[in-house]
Amino acid sequence: MGKPKVLIIGSGGVGTISALSLTHNNKSEVTLIVRSDYELIKNQGYSIDSCTYGKLKNWKPHNLAKSVDDALEKYGPFDYILLTTKNIPDGPITCEEIIEPALKTGKEVIILLQNGINIEQPMIEKFPQNLILSGVSLIGSTYYNGHVENKGLDSVFLGDFKNPPIHPESQDKINEFISIYHNPGLNDIKQDPNVQKTRWEKLIYNSAFNTVTALVNLDVTRIQINNANEEIILPAMKEVIAIAKSVGIECDESKIEKFLHIGDGFFYSPSMCIDARKNQLMELEIILGNPIRIAKENNVNVPVLNVIYSLLKMVQFRLKEERKMFIIDPKDFKGNSNDYPKIFEEKYVHNK
Amino acid sequence: MGKPKVLIIGSGGVGTISALSLTHNNKSEVTLIVRSDYELIKNQGYSIDSCTYGKLKNWKPHNLAKSVDDALEKYGPFDYILLTTKNIPDGPITCEEIIEPALKTGKEVIILLQNGINIEQPMIEKFPQNLILSGVSLIGSTYYNGHVENKGLDSVFLGDFKNPPIHPESQDKINEFISIYHNPGLNDIKQDPNVQKTRWEKLIYNSAFNTVTALVNLDVTRIQINNANEEIILPAMKEVIAIAKSVGIECDESKIEKFLHIGDGFFYSPSMCIDARKNQLMELEIILGNPIRIAKENNVNVPVLNVIYSLLKMVQFRLKEERKMFIIDPKDFKGNSNDYPKIFEEKYVHNK
Repeated sequence: MGKPKVLIIGSGGVGTISALSLTHNNKSEVTLIVRSDYELIKNQGYSIDSCTYGKLKNWKPHNLAKSVDDALEKYGPFDYILLTTKNIPDGPITCEEIIEPALKTGKEVIILLQNGINIEQPMIEKFPQNLILSGVSLIGSTYYNGHVENKGLDSVFLGDFKNPPIHPESQDKINEFISIYHNPGLNDIKQDPNVQKTRWEKLIYNSAFNTVTALVNLDVTRIQINNANEEIILPAMKEVIAIAKSVGIECDESKIEKFLHIGDGFFYSPSMCIDARKNQLMELEIILGNPIRIAKENNVNVPVLNVIYSLLKMVQFRLKEERKMFIIDPKDFKGNSNDYPKIFEEKYVHNK
Repeated sequence: MGKPKVLIIGSGGVGTISALSLTHNNKSEVTLIVRSDYELIKNQGYSIDSCTYGKLKNWKPHNLAKSVDDALEKYGPFDYILLTTKNIPDGPITCEEIIEPALKTGKEVIILLQNGINIEQPMIEKFPQNLILSGVSLIGSTYYNGHVENKGLDSVFLGDFKNPPIHPESQDKINEFISIYHNPGLNDIKQDPNVQKTRWEKLIYNSAFNTVTALVNLDVTRIQINNANEEIILPAMKEVIAIAKSVGIECDESKIEKFLHIGDGFFYSPSMCIDARKNQLMELEIILGNPIRIAKENNVNVPVLNVIYSLLKMVQFRLKEERKMFIIDPKDFKGNSNDYPKIFEEKYVHNK
């Protein structure tokens, strides 16, 4: 039996360093999909400046592919599909649609190394035969135009979405992936027996800081100058913890104090803020929409998150319109405004 | 005794049509201050397209002045000062500072033809000897580059901020101003015995639609497509009515239904939205800040408005920084973020 084959979909800051970790370890065959910058990377490779791997020039994983179809044909079938793209279920393509062409044997292990809550549910529904694992990444890494700036240790929490796991091979696959990924001293990957809790705890930060900075187009330090911690971030974080509790997850309350101050003085702009600034769609539904839906189902009172979500849905609508995902025809919206949401849903969303 | 002299400060859509109404009536001597477009208006006058006054070319009021000082010197002292500027107490210049150079006799009647709540308080404190009247304008009028587009009837509600009035000349001056302003069939001006109620009722619209559209950068129809009426506008409107009630003002509840639908199908962008879009400061404090402060004082629960206000303060901060009202020095914000609001207040606001 040869080395396990890993396909990485998503070649941003997270995906490239994952490819580096796996390639460096060299116990797997690594295929990375590079879409828009394919020619650049094929010719020059990546330049990487990593806090642990050092400065690399012209670096490439074992295989590069232009598309998932291309990858499967040349280098598949795969044992692991590591998904590191943004997760935007309301975008032009869902993660299920992205992954689908890579699946051949039904035995592929799908690892969602992505933010957010309930991201596994549409995956499990669509691909019930595959083992789907949850990865939470705590890396600091950005990609731009062939260059990767990796300032924070690549640290992955890996586990089964279900605890205890229901898939018979779950533990074996987690062990294997950790063994092919782990480079002691250079990165960190560990099994997380309660990866849902880790997700919710990461969400304490993301649901508050990502969302508010995206709405007002200011970095974390600047919103803190405006007393955001007290007025809006802390109440929002407490609401996230209350939602988690309603699904049986007791977040460590000390995370609040930690996350309130984790960015002190860094003038850091979270990803949703950067996306909104660049007129790119935001990971709104998996960071805020899904938690809000859980809150509604479980009758958890989340007044601050509700307002933030309502506002950000409008921003996402604007981004979609700017990206020509639809073109509003004023003739469709002439009568009583109570009818507009339904008209939009029927004419613009269902018939897209 | 000659005609009363009226100084109009603010030559936007409202101020120019006020100047037209007064000049047309011709029972007063009208001086209009034109700042940035002074040369243009001095040479060419205004072109006006009015739903009642018709199309006018090269139109000018009796007098034009470049500045308040200039106006006082050439055409003062004045009997009436009609203030139609935006009211941005946190901007580079307050309305009190704008008016101050026009005051000479202590007998000037100051008419605040502006939006918002509690705008009279700093005026009364600063100029206790002057009679200060409240005007609420329901005009549809925009000014751009020498041209005025006046689509909605100039309609003014005029009254004493205090009800019953405390200034002995209040009723006489209201009568006189109405007589010099009113052009039957062309405009509408009436005494409003409860002008504070009229202000609060206008605020039902402004505190909700102005603010939300400014935050998400979408017109009214587009936020309605996103179900804003139900999710955020209606709850915000109810909170405004509750604040008004706490100061003894019972708004007509039917205004809610009226204002929810007043813009149906018009794809209209309210002034705060336009200001934010143009990177201009918004009338945030008099439209939302002052009502919120009243709510706090009177223990009125306004969860939706609180979140909107908190977010818009951050947007206003960004607009101020973009306009170089201050330049953030990262060295000032290095330690615990709990201290940032105080540091900002002390170093950047007090020492401006």
